[in-house]
Amino acid sequence: MLGKCLENVRIEAPLIHNITNYVTVNDVANMILACGASPIMADAQEEAEEITSICNGLNINIGTLNSRTVRSMLLAGKRAADLGHPVLLDPVGAGASTMRTDTAMNLIHEIPFTVIRGNVSEIKTLAGVHSSTRGVDADLKDAVSEANLDQAVLFVKETAEKFKCIIAVTGAIDLVSDSKICYVIRNGRPEMGRITGTGCQLSGLMTAFLAANPDCRLEAAAAAVCAMGVAGETGWNYMQPQDGNAAYRNRMIDAVYNMNAEMLDKGADYEVR
Amino acid sequence: MLGKCLENVRIEAPLIHNITNYVTVNDVANMILACGASPIMADAQEEAEEITSICNGLNINIGTLNSRTVRSMLLAGKRAADLGHPVLLDPVGAGASTMRTDTAMNLIHEIPFTVIRGNVSEIKTLAGVHSSTRGVDADLKDAVSEANLDQAVLFVKETAEKFKCIIAVTGAIDLVSDSKICYVIRNGRPEMGRITGTGCQLSGLMTAFLAANPDCRLEAAAAAVCAMGVAGETGWNYMQPQDGNAAYRNRMIDAVYNMNAEMLDKGADYEVR
Amino acid sequence: MLGKCLENVRIEAPLIHNITNYVTVNDVANMILACGASPIMADAQEEAEEITSICNGLNINIGTLNSRTVRSMLLAGKRAADLGHPVLLDPVGAGASTMRTDTAMNLIHEIPFTVIRGNVSEIKTLAGVHSSTRGVDADLKDAVSEANLDQAVLFVKETAEKFKCIIAVTGAIDLVSDSKICYVIRNGRPEMGRITGTGCQLSGLMTAFLAANPDCRLEAAAAAVCAMGVAGETGWNYMQPQDGNAAYRNRMIDAVYNMNAEMLDKGADYEVR
Repeated sequence: MLGKCLENVRIEAPLIHNITNYVTVNDVANMILACGASPIMADAQEEAEEITSICNGLNINIGTLNSRTVRSMLLAGKRAADLGHPVLLDPVGAGASTMRTDTAMNLIHEIPFTVIRGNVSEIKTLAGVHSSTRGVDADLKDAVSEANLDQAVLFVKETAEKFKCIIAVTGAIDLVSDSKICYVIRNGRPEMGRITGTGCQLSGLMTAFLAANPDCRLEAAAAAVCAMGVAGETGWNYMQPQDGNAAYRNRMIDAVYNMNAEMLDKGADYEVR
Repeated sequence: MLGKCLENVRIEAPLIHNITNYVTVNDVANMILACGASPIMADAQEEAEEITSICNGLNINIGTLNSRTVRSMLLAGKRAADLGHPVLLDPVGAGASTMRTDTAMNLIHEIPFTVIRGNVSEIKTLAGVHSSTRGVDADLKDAVSEANLDQAVLFVKETAEKFKCIIAVTGAIDLVSDSKICYVIRNGRPEMGRITGTGCQLSGLMTAFLAANPDCRLEAAAAAVCAMGVAGETGWNYMQPQDGNAAYRNRMIDAVYNMNAEMLDKGADYEVR
Repeated sequence: MLGKCLENVRIEAPLIHNITNYVTVNDVANMILACGASPIMADAQEEAEEITSICNGLNINIGTLNSRTVRSMLLAGKRAADLGHPVLLDPVGAGASTMRTDTAMNLIHEIPFTVIRGNVSEIKTLAGVHSSTRGVDADLKDAVSEANLDQAVLFVKETAEKFKCIIAVTGAIDLVSDSKICYVIRNGRPEMGRITGTGCQLSGLMTAFLAANPDCRLEAAAAAVCAMGVAGETGWNYMQPQDGNAAYRNRMIDAVYNMNAEMLDKGADYEVR
């Protein structure tokens, strides 16, 4: 059950190393704390390997990459993988610039990622499928829908096979696959897209779930996606008429803080294909 | 009507490239989302030009500048201007250090800005008028007031003429001029100054308004200033006794999220001189 | 009385220069504004000395240090000390990496700090006492408790003597000493540890208190610790059932915003040893 994965995060309280963007970093840290894990942000190449060594998982996010931090991503990623830590890539904006696409591909080439999590346009770009991006947002015409679901599930399974890791494509419908099976998740709300960094927050949350559940990483990744979606639904239920995306941001983090295994199991809306 | 400018942002949903400081960047992103636009933050010189090319407007803010990001500002600013995108400069702390003043002046020399938006001390510094700053805040003795309004309007008109762009001086009374006419805006509340980054948020918001209203940029700039001020008033109305500047920050972003054209037109308090 | 120290911050409104991490910087800025001071963040070496010269205090935090910002810390720290400004060091993660430990020790060697404020594991690392860290959090077995309080007070006094500055060790029980006497403070709540950056916020707040109270710096440091703890208690009292660490973060900053001298004096729970 997915709830057990959340319970394990609260029991294990893993320490998560994040090399991430400066836009959403505070929310990522608070989201990691909300689920029961601890964050540390460190992006200097002088300490990247040492810091990741004392942690239990590594979250790499290229949202505001630069040449200095990319070197740290490579160093930390290789070391974390050598130590058997889960390593997640959030290829923010892959497809929006050559630097982002090339950096993501280079990281994938050098580091055996546990999970690559992005929106559908980013993942299509990495898979070499013709795509377009809208900055850091998915292009609308790429969106996974009930109409193209079979095709999308196949694409995610094939991409997982291609990159030999779990692929998590998040959007209106979320898909999480290890190439063999695919979780199809229908939690969440469209208004989550009006908050900056819900994707980044999910990547931090997922790394914590992966670190605390080494024996069932696919299930852990799916559980994190469901937890985020359920938090989006729970948070929305508490919205007042005058609330907007700033209040919603806080309410979602708070919903994870107050979530327990039973609430996650009850709220998770998924099927396995 | 100013409300139409907001409506156009929601219809056009422009993508705004921000090279901005790491202090207030999250609030800038959420403010841009609140008004109906989309933000992307990217400050690496390797991608600055490419990212700005896929966007509809560029917001340059020197709040935590360094030599690396200043190069990216120059590259992105020239490219955006070449493409006819609106480009805004927020000269945070101009006058507080030689580096900030020189950088702002150099950017103005190299890039044909659409708008320069700052507090009165920053704009006086750029205009070469004797001024002083209090860090990133305006000096009290520079403040625009009813007593010195005629003189202040003249100064802003002349500065717009000098720099061949729209000048927006914000404070207790806001002035927005293209050299010929000047909007005098009396929205907002003094408590907005107790939140970090309301100026930065306004610059992001204004860039979105400029991008969605290419045919009436002066009106768009004034509409953004009024929208921010009305949000400050609306947000304040929802304050509870225990609330402070953190709650106020959220309530202001939420007020923009919930604002429509009618509310902006009704709330805007301005005259044209 | 400690309340007088807060009152002085509101009267003097000191300008505080922060060279701090990008994770919690926005909350640090809003906390400094909440107490009545003004923040400026500037980490470029070209302007570090000039910016600190126009300020009234300097807060150095190594939470996301890199080689570029470390040089700025050294430049600004020496200049601020030369000018007689209070300079605070927050050695985030000292002990978690060689770079952090070495940087903190080098800063201490080069700059006559007014206060070093950290968790117990960080301060033990700097004092050369065998310790371990849990990333940026204190190791549980290092925690100051009623059982080991005498020993902990002695340690903090000796460390203050060793480094010739005020040492503030914060945790469940907070200790603030200038080597001769030691404030033992029991304000706050354990849930504060589930918010990212409460330590960073306290360092910013404390620098403001130090700047506004040049004649009683030990008392000012203790007053800041009490103010933060009282805010943690006040904020908690307003928590709703659906609230979590995101709401709590806002409520704490708001509690400082609404705090006055009387409330601080009434709420402060401390003894002097």
